[in-house]
Amino acid sequence: MERETLKKLAEIVGADHLTTTREELLCYSYDGSGLEYPPEAVIFPGNTAEVSRIMQLASAAGFAVVPRGAGTGMTGGALPVAGGVVMAMSRFNRIIEIDAANQVAVVEPGVITGDFQREVAKLGLFYPPDPASHQFCTLGGNVAECAGGPRAVKYGVTRDYVLGLTAVLADGRTIHTGVRTAKGVAGYDLTRLLVGSEGTLAIITAITVRLLPQPAARATFQLLFSELPAATSLVSRLLNRMTPCTLEYLDRTALKIVADQLPAPLPEATAALLLIELDGDREVVELQAARLNEFLANQEGLLEVRRAATGPETEQLWAARRAISPATFKLKPHKIGEDVVVPRSKIPELVACTEALAAKHGLLILTFGHAGDGNIHVNIMLDRQDPRELEAAEAATGELFAKVIELSGTITGEHGVGLTKSAFLGREIDAPTQAIMRAVKKTFDPQNILNPGKIFA
Amino acid sequence: MERETLKKLAEIVGADHLTTTREELLCYSYDGSGLEYPPEAVIFPGNTAEVSRIMQLASAAGFAVVPRGAGTGMTGGALPVAGGVVMAMSRFNRIIEIDAANQVAVVEPGVITGDFQREVAKLGLFYPPDPASHQFCTLGGNVAECAGGPRAVKYGVTRDYVLGLTAVLADGRTIHTGVRTAKGVAGYDLTRLLVGSEGTLAIITAITVRLLPQPAARATFQLLFSELPAATSLVSRLLNRMTPCTLEYLDRTALKIVADQLPAPLPEATAALLLIELDGDREVVELQAARLNEFLANQEGLLEVRRAATGPETEQLWAARRAISPATFKLKPHKIGEDVVVPRSKIPELVACTEALAAKHGLLILTFGHAGDGNIHVNIMLDRQDPRELEAAEAATGELFAKVIELSGTITGEHGVGLTKSAFLGREIDAPTQAIMRAVKKTFDPQNILNPGKIFA
Repeated sequence: MERETLKKLAEIVGADHLTTTREELLCYSYDGSGLEYPPEAVIFPGNTAEVSRIMQLASAAGFAVVPRGAGTGMTGGALPVAGGVVMAMSRFNRIIEIDAANQVAVVEPGVITGDFQREVAKLGLFYPPDPASHQFCTLGGNVAECAGGPRAVKYGVTRDYVLGLTAVLADGRTIHTGVRTAKGVAGYDLTRLLVGSEGTLAIITAITVRLLPQPAARATFQLLFSELPAATSLVSRLLNRMTPCTLEYLDRTALKIVADQLPAPLPEATAALLLIELDGDREVVELQAARLNEFLANQEGLLEVRRAATGPETEQLWAARRAISPATFKLKPHKIGEDVVVPRSKIPELVACTEALAAKHGLLILTFGHAGDGNIHVNIMLDRQDPRELEAAEAATGELFAKVIELSGTITGEHGVGLTKSAFLGREIDAPTQAIMRAVKKTFDPQNILNPGKIFA
Repeated sequence: MERETLKKLAEIVGADHLTTTREELLCYSYDGSGLEYPPEAVIFPGNTAEVSRIMQLASAAGFAVVPRGAGTGMTGGALPVAGGVVMAMSRFNRIIEIDAANQVAVVEPGVITGDFQREVAKLGLFYPPDPASHQFCTLGGNVAECAGGPRAVKYGVTRDYVLGLTAVLADGRTIHTGVRTAKGVAGYDLTRLLVGSEGTLAIITAITVRLLPQPAARATFQLLFSELPAATSLVSRLLNRMTPCTLEYLDRTALKIVADQLPAPLPEATAALLLIELDGDREVVELQAARLNEFLANQEGLLEVRRAATGPETEQLWAARRAISPATFKLKPHKIGEDVVVPRSKIPELVACTEALAAKHGLLILTFGHAGDGNIHVNIMLDRQDPRELEAAEAATGELFAKVIELSGTITGEHGVGLTKSAFLGREIDAPTQAIMRAVKKTFDPQNILNPGKIFA
């Protein structure tokens, strides 16, 4: 970038809020994908007006702008693949308002999801979306990716909680979408169009979300199975009877790598675990728990049902579940991590496919994830320096996606397309539909300066 | 329209499925708005390929196409204000698939909402959106308007149930949006962009919806109040404690016009009624009912709480509620019916405003609706032949919208903008946001042939 442009950027935000030093650029050249693309500068705007002026300058000078939350995304969404400026939203860190009477809050995009959840909980309120990274990730990143999490099976995903947005377009115009009421249908639903658009259509500077009353109680159950299909085939049958708050699944390998973090050692015969949580009013949870136990009474392949006795024990179970993704690197230095989704009744078929792919290609593949949504995290482990493993892993990925599409599934449930899945978008979305998506992109960002190189290959 | 064009249309669908007779055109020149615009022809396509060929012809010849469900919309969405062809979707009347194991269905847009609900109920499943017209309206119309209904307070609106769409663009290309899984974030969310787009972006030919398990039990309560504010101020307090399935409100005038349809006569002192329904597992409903009674024990201005004793009594209560909108015409030959939404804690202020407007302008205004969502149907009754009343009603409408915007509300919760509210869109949506909406419209429909004259004034 030209020195003159950098000078103008510094004038907009102040010299303290722009950096071009090599060390700092390095910090912003990674994200959860493990890939690396250094930006030419990192800018830290402090308000919507500054974002607007930055985008006016970017439009005039033609440089790329890549908005960034905490960089926990798994598909390279925050990486500046075409150079330009990373716009770090860390100064947008205020909870502007929590309107408890109306169960609505207005937040800035740099607020950390877990911090926000704790703040609303103090008022007896509940913000359900809970990506595994919720202690680090930001609400802006959650909105950009339409993040999910274990509780989606009962409560839905980020999309279901966003009522309205303030956002800056590529040319610097500021728009206000949606409402702060329970309903609203005036004009096009730009709110949900921006949710999950991965920073390619606009830069979000404020988010209005709806909240729920905090559930009074929860009960957590750990189900151990001696056979993998016994676990995976139980999912859709259970969901036709009741709606737990979470219904997570871990295969044998996933269990092994977090075994030392579980509250108690597992029987050797354990082939899979389901982690089920119920929530609601105290009496309702107990009623549901009784129904769950009744349902589980005669399930084949079920070794054991343990109910977490205490809050700390529940926390330990969840900490172990959240530790899986980072712990996979105990197995191999790299992974191809997919978050495919299939109709819930097809989970056994999907998991059988991953086992067959592992055998066929001589790969270590572990699976875990949000079984209640049919959203299975398939982790193909490899050493990228080993050409055989790399080739095998890439072949297995292609075959996995083919199976997912055959089962009427999708290539991504919550991680987004970003960089790492853009080559596969055409497997799922046909040419006319992609064409109109690209036309929408062009309408919002005719110069292709907002997070270029993402979603569309 | 030219004879040659009509001949080509007849070739696409067969002569039996195109009409230009005056009598039949008349039938398609009205909708729930009470306005009248006759089309030049009505066409009844039978499948997506025919819709595609019709749109190719429309693009080439430049005539307008207005998709139409059952014509129950309240804002003129189905009216051919710029002439051209009404595309009646009545032959798209098949439920293509109900996948009970995965709680998903695929339907054609001409299926009547109530018929669909009954079909899925046979399999123990539940499709919650329930606009008052659900016995007549179609799922396609519901999607086009993002229809709501009383159950939205617990279950959300049509948007929350649509997973994917097949749709034909203005130029005849067919697109496939969304997924048939619980989650999915590949590419832009065209599904929700089309939901609520009022037939201006594409013609929907298939809809994938998610379903829930049918609640086992429900309990219905009729709360009578001696003071209107006692009823309206109870809403947000109650919702901070529990989430009923419905929380409807009727003012004194609304009650009077359906009094003969209620299960029992109301005390003379009744100034307002709240209709509360709880649903879920049998034991859970009884627990909630006990909590509701506890909460209601010391509410000021509450005359009486009656629980509907039987299924037929519940049905009668709901039939009375649904009868209000048509019954208003007992009072005056015409009405301006608005479906504004405000934050729930602001309902008392909104209702007080409507009373003040009635007094100031010498008008009869009644209010009722989905108080749980803050979605109040404000009916300004008038005789359009009376110039004083017309002028007063129009002035009151403008003042009502000003108050709604002041209260951080929206001009439409579920009826859409259509024709009747397009002049007011600018009160709610600022110029840059409208500009990008119009740019989206132009991207989808560069010739402005899909339902022209709607949403944007």
